[in-house]
Amino acid sequence: MNIIATVHKSLATEIEQINQLIISHLECKEELVELVGRYLIESGGKRIRPLLTILTSKMFHYEGRGSIMLAAAVEFIHTATLLHDDVVDDSCLRRFKPTANTIWGNKTSILVGDFLFSQSFKLMVGAECMPALQALSRAAAIIAAGEVAQLSKLKQRRILSINEYNEIITAKTAELFGAACEVGAIIAGREQQTCAMMHQFGLYLGTIFQIMDDWLDYSVMDSEAGKNIGGDFYEGKVTLPLILLYDKLCKAEQENLALIIKADVRTEQDLQNIRQLLDHHEIKQQTMTYLMGIAAKANALLKVNGTQNAYQRYLLALLEFAMIRSY
Amino acid sequence: MNIIATVHKSLATEIEQINQLIISHLECKEELVELVGRYLIESGGKRIRPLLTILTSKMFHYEGRGSIMLAAAVEFIHTATLLHDDVVDDSCLRRFKPTANTIWGNKTSILVGDFLFSQSFKLMVGAECMPALQALSRAAAIIAAGEVAQLSKLKQRRILSINEYNEIITAKTAELFGAACEVGAIIAGREQQTCAMMHQFGLYLGTIFQIMDDWLDYSVMDSEAGKNIGGDFYEGKVTLPLILLYDKLCKAEQENLALIIKADVRTEQDLQNIRQLLDHHEIKQQTMTYLMGIAAKANALLKVNGTQNAYQRYLLALLEFAMIRSY
Repeated sequence: MNIIATVHKSLATEIEQINQLIISHLECKEELVELVGRYLIESGGKRIRPLLTILTSKMFHYEGRGSIMLAAAVEFIHTATLLHDDVVDDSCLRRFKPTANTIWGNKTSILVGDFLFSQSFKLMVGAECMPALQALSRAAAIIAAGEVAQLSKLKQRRILSINEYNEIITAKTAELFGAACEVGAIIAGREQQTCAMMHQFGLYLGTIFQIMDDWLDYSVMDSEAGKNIGGDFYEGKVTLPLILLYDKLCKAEQENLALIIKADVRTEQDLQNIRQLLDHHEIKQQTMTYLMGIAAKANALLKVNGTQNAYQRYLLALLEFAMIRSY
Repeated sequence: MNIIATVHKSLATEIEQINQLIISHLECKEELVELVGRYLIESGGKRIRPLLTILTSKMFHYEGRGSIMLAAAVEFIHTATLLHDDVVDDSCLRRFKPTANTIWGNKTSILVGDFLFSQSFKLMVGAECMPALQALSRAAAIIAAGEVAQLSKLKQRRILSINEYNEIITAKTAELFGAACEVGAIIAGREQQTCAMMHQFGLYLGTIFQIMDDWLDYSVMDSEAGKNIGGDFYEGKVTLPLILLYDKLCKAEQENLALIIKADVRTEQDLQNIRQLLDHHEIKQQTMTYLMGIAAKANALLKVNGTQNAYQRYLLALLEFAMIRSY
């Protein structure tokens, strides 16, 4: 059994409570909202963000219901973001299923996304914990600004620097992982320093998840991924593998890569060539080394904390999972 | 000087504070966010919603800074909603200027809307008033669900009942007017009954504003309105004038009107014909009578409250303005 399944089993009660809360917050006189909401929520996903909130709160011995509400809020923010992302990216497939915008159209996706965002807000308010509200509202603003940044950068169609890439993935993914962990510590009443540390742990974990995601976009087969592989590449989205590769190429090859990204469309042959180059320059190994550096920092951060129990061990196990996952 | 200008003059300090707060919450490393945000915020508008929050709070003798933050939050919710609405409605013109989606594209509008929504959330949290957060989060959820409802109804392309119409405009406009007034009373520490009364007053006022808006869409010239006149009609959006008209028509005419709404496009000639029918059946008078009924209830509600001062008088004056405005 993999670690995600183990954590799910160990937190079965809490996950059931989160699911109930999610379902009750999808209830809406307007059937279409409920339909789309259920489609998204029930389409699986690993529920990793809400798990982080629960694990962190339990690591700090929290027993109340506030963490359940915050966890559900975090999942709603995530789902709302996905809906809008899929519209902005014109995505067709996610987790082996057609995206909501493919089925119900962009307009419905925009508005249901807004609804989910408003429900996440209601859930957070329901937790009645002002510092958690502050953390999540800050995260929501960073995520939204980051999405716009990503869109502008994408329009420029050029090879990004690693700093630019890091800024994008921090806003896009790591911030919500960070906030998910942070609010777990906040609701458990931990002092600010500990909450900040858990935020940083989440940032590291989210960064690893996103980098792995970006790597998988080049490495796995369509049938394994549940989404359109090479999607980032076809869209002209520059992620870590390309950035690392670019650095290894000679001048002429660099110019060629820049042209491929600048072009209006990228072909299957382009993708094949890039995959060969990635292989040849051992970009996978380099990516993994890079990730191990981040994981080591995350690991140290969690261990310095001193709260050693099963929940801390699960968090460490999730970190390991993030490094080896293939889906 | 009209009432809006009078209120703006009387609340010049507060409006300046709101504007400062809005501008500081538009600040973003990502230039495009700031650019679009400023374009929207500075494109004028009457700032009627934040004024309601300030007027209500001052009517109840509130002196602090919380109302300023809530007022700015309300304006951000409103602006975010407009951005997404214009994408969903494919609108090109608003307040005499091209819409953001026309200038920067739908994708930017979606994401900047999300950013503004997240900033509204930060502002509310900043006011540190849990019941105000509850009121605004509830309103945000109703607005979002209502937008989806409107989209579904629009797709059905049929003459709506007056109840359906009322549900749509309540969610679309009246709820935020209601919440704007409600949070003014909440931050001033008034008991729940008074807050609920102010919420209801705002609902009435918002309903009048929206109905007037829908009427103006048929009555004024392009040059006066600052938006595309007949826009609702061309989109096949059924509003009160058509609903009242439908009721007056004979069977054959009713069928014809239903067909016009069902058609893929509506022509300028169609609009001319409808305007003649509206005139002939005295729909303007009927609409005004309908509005006067609502205004009387709103008036009574505010007066029963007993807090008679300049701010209450301004609220009553806004009610009058809503009835006679032509822009």
